[in-house]
Amino acid sequence: MSADLAIRAGVALQSVRTRTPRVHCLMNTVVQKLVADGLSAIGAIPSMTSSVEEVADFAAKADALVVNLGTLDAARRQAISIAVAAAGEGGKPWALDPAHCDYSPPRAAFARELIARSPSAVRTNEAEFDLLAVPDRVVGVRTGRVDVVAGAGHTLAIENGHPLMARVTGTGCLSGAVIAAFLAVETDPFIASAAATLVMGVAAEIAAERAAGPGSFEPAFLDALHGLQADDIVQRARVRHDKG
Amino acid sequence: MSADLAIRAGVALQSVRTRTPRVHCLMNTVVQKLVADGLSAIGAIPSMTSSVEEVADFAAKADALVVNLGTLDAARRQAISIAVAAAGEGGKPWALDPAHCDYSPPRAAFARELIARSPSAVRTNEAEFDLLAVPDRVVGVRTGRVDVVAGAGHTLAIENGHPLMARVTGTGCLSGAVIAAFLAVETDPFIASAAATLVMGVAAEIAAERAAGPGSFEPAFLDALHGLQADDIVQRARVRHDKG
Amino acid sequence: MSADLAIRAGVALQSVRTRTPRVHCLMNTVVQKLVADGLSAIGAIPSMTSSVEEVADFAAKADALVVNLGTLDAARRQAISIAVAAAGEGGKPWALDPAHCDYSPPRAAFARELIARSPSAVRTNEAEFDLLAVPDRVVGVRTGRVDVVAGAGHTLAIENGHPLMARVTGTGCLSGAVIAAFLAVETDPFIASAAATLVMGVAAEIAAERAAGPGSFEPAFLDALHGLQADDIVQRARVRHDKG
Repeated sequence: MSADLAIRAGVALQSVRTRTPRVHCLMNTVVQKLVADGLSAIGAIPSMTSSVEEVADFAAKADALVVNLGTLDAARRQAISIAVAAAGEGGKPWALDPAHCDYSPPRAAFARELIARSPSAVRTNEAEFDLLAVPDRVVGVRTGRVDVVAGAGHTLAIENGHPLMARVTGTGCLSGAVIAAFLAVETDPFIASAAATLVMGVAAEIAAERAAGPGSFEPAFLDALHGLQADDIVQRARVRHDKG
Repeated sequence: MSADLAIRAGVALQSVRTRTPRVHCLMNTVVQKLVADGLSAIGAIPSMTSSVEEVADFAAKADALVVNLGTLDAARRQAISIAVAAAGEGGKPWALDPAHCDYSPPRAAFARELIARSPSAVRTNEAEFDLLAVPDRVVGVRTGRVDVVAGAGHTLAIENGHPLMARVTGTGCLSGAVIAAFLAVETDPFIASAAATLVMGVAAEIAAERAAGPGSFEPAFLDALHGLQADDIVQRARVRHDKG
Repeated sequence: MSADLAIRAGVALQSVRTRTPRVHCLMNTVVQKLVADGLSAIGAIPSMTSSVEEVADFAAKADALVVNLGTLDAARRQAISIAVAAAGEGGKPWALDPAHCDYSPPRAAFARELIARSPSAVRTNEAEFDLLAVPDRVVGVRTGRVDVVAGAGHTLAIENGHPLMARVTGTGCLSGAVIAAFLAVETDPFIASAAATLVMGVAAEIAAERAAGPGSFEPAFLDALHGLQADDIVQRARVRHDKG
C-alpha cells in the first residue's frame, strides 16, 4: 500500500502542477499568506477573499474549496455558507478544517453543521477528531505524530512528517488547502486526501534536514514542496494499511 | 533610456532611504506583513489600518497611499474611499492595485470608479490590464514576464525580474506599495513608477541567485531590497523604450 | 542586577517551555502569523481569534492575554473589552501594546481607557510612551535603542537588541506577546517583563550574526528564540539598574 500510495501521490502532484487548479480558501486571517504560498509552491493557484459580496464569484469559478474555521465571526460564517453552496452547485470538491473548534462550543456546532453538508474531506488534529463525529462517507484526515486517513471502510497511517511542523503556525491549515488542491485533480477523495497528506509529510522531512529551527523550517518547507519529485515520495513514504 | 532610468532609480531609492516616507496601505489581509516588510526594506515606513474610524488620520499624515482591492468587503470599500479623499485633500500621491478584479465584476466596477478619481499610477497584471481602460494621463504599470510602464505618451519595457516572484504571494502587491513610496519622493509619476518597477526587478534577480525555491526567495528578496546599491541597478537594468 | 535578571530570565524561559502557557492574542491583522510563530518558538501556545462571538471562550481558558491596538475597528474594540473582562474574572495577567496610538487620537484615548483597567504591563515605543501616562503600579516597557523597564519604583535599562529588529514589522508586537507568556509563569510582573525583554534582545543579537538583511533576520530570529539557552542569556545580558 505504501508504494502504491506513493506512486499515486507523485502522479497527483504532477497533475496539480500541470492543471494548476485554483483553490479558493476561506482561511483564518493568521495564516492566509502561508497557505497561499504553500498552494503556489505545489503548483496550484490560491484565492483568499472572505468578503460576502465577492465569495460566490470566487468560489464558483474555483476548482476546489477549503473552509477553515479559524478567526470565525458572523461575516465569515456567512461567507463560508455562501461558498459551500457555490461549490455544491458547481459540483466542486471541498475540504473542511474545523481549526481549534475544541476551544469554542459555537465553532464546534458550526463544524457539525458543515460536516452535514458533505465535504469531501475533513482535516482535524486529535482533539478536534475526538470532538467531532466524522461519518465514514466523508474522508477524515487526523494529523498528529502519525497522520491517519480514514473513510469508506479504509484506514491508512502515514508516519512521515517532522515535529517542527507543529512549531510553525499554519502547517495544519495548509494541509487542508493542499488536500483541496489534490481533490481538484484526483476523483477518489480517499486517495486525494492520503496523497496530499503524504506529500506534506515528505516535504517536511526534507525541509527539516535543511532547517536550524522553526524559523528556517518554513521557507525550507516551501522550497521542498516546490522541488518535490515523485522519486522523493516513493523513497521516503512510510505508510501502513491499518485495517480493512 | 535604460542607463538614464537606472541612474534616476538609484537616486530615487536613495531619496526613499533618506526621507523615509510613510506609505499608508489599504492592503488585502493576505499580504500585509510582506508589504510592510518590503516597504521597511527599501527605507520607507509602512502603516496598514483599514479601519473606517482610523484611516482618515493615518492617510492624512502619510506621504503617499496605496490602495489594493484584494479581500474587498463593504467596510474596506468605505475605508478606501475615505483614504483616497484624504490623500486628495492633502495633495498626496496614490497608487491603485486592482488585485484580481478580473475574478469579480463588483471589484472591477469599483476599480473603474477609483481610476476616475485620478490615482498617480495603476499597477495591474495582464488580465487586469485588458479588463480596465487606464487613461493615458494615469501611469499604467503592467507587470508580467516583461513589465510595461506607460503614460503621457511614453512606454518603457523593463525586462528585469524573475519567475519566482510569481510563486510568492504578494510580490505584485508590494510593487504597488513600492511605487507609492517612490511617488512620495519623485514628482514625475512616470519616472517614479518605472524606477520602482526596475528596483523590484533587479532585487528579484539578485534574490533568485541566492534562493533554492520560492520559500527562500522571499527573505532573500527582502535582503536584496535592503542592500540594493545604485551600481546594482545600473549594471543590471534591461530597459527598452518601445514607442513615443 | 544584570546577572540576577539574566538568571531569572533563563528560569522563566524554561518555565514557559515546560508549562507551555496559552497566550490569547488580540493582535493586529498584519503580524498575527509572526506573533504566533514567535510564541511557538519560545514554547508557548498562541491563539488569535478577535471574533466577538468567540473571544470570551478563548480568553477565559488562556493563561495570559496580550492586547495590541493595531488595525483597530469597532468590532476589535468590542472584542478587546470582552477579552480584558474575561482575563480580569479569571485572574489572568494581561499586557497592553498601544501600537502606533500616536498616529490616531481615538486609539490613544482607547489606550488610556485600557490602562485604567490595570494591565500587568504596557509595552510602548518612545513616541507612544511620551503620549501615555503609565502609572507606576503598571510595569512599563519602552523599547528602542535601549529598552527601559520601569515600575513599582524600579527602573532597568536593557542594552541588548539589534537595529534589524526595527526593519521587521511585528517584532515590537511580538515583544508584547512574549511579555504576556512570561507573565503566565512568573508572578512578579516586573521580573516577567524585564526577562521577556532581555530574551528578545539576546535572541535578536544571535539572529543578526546569521542574517544578511531584514529578510533573513526574521527566520533566524525565530530559530534563535527556539534554541536560546540560559547560558546565552547570562553571557550576553547587558542590563543597567538606573535608579531606585
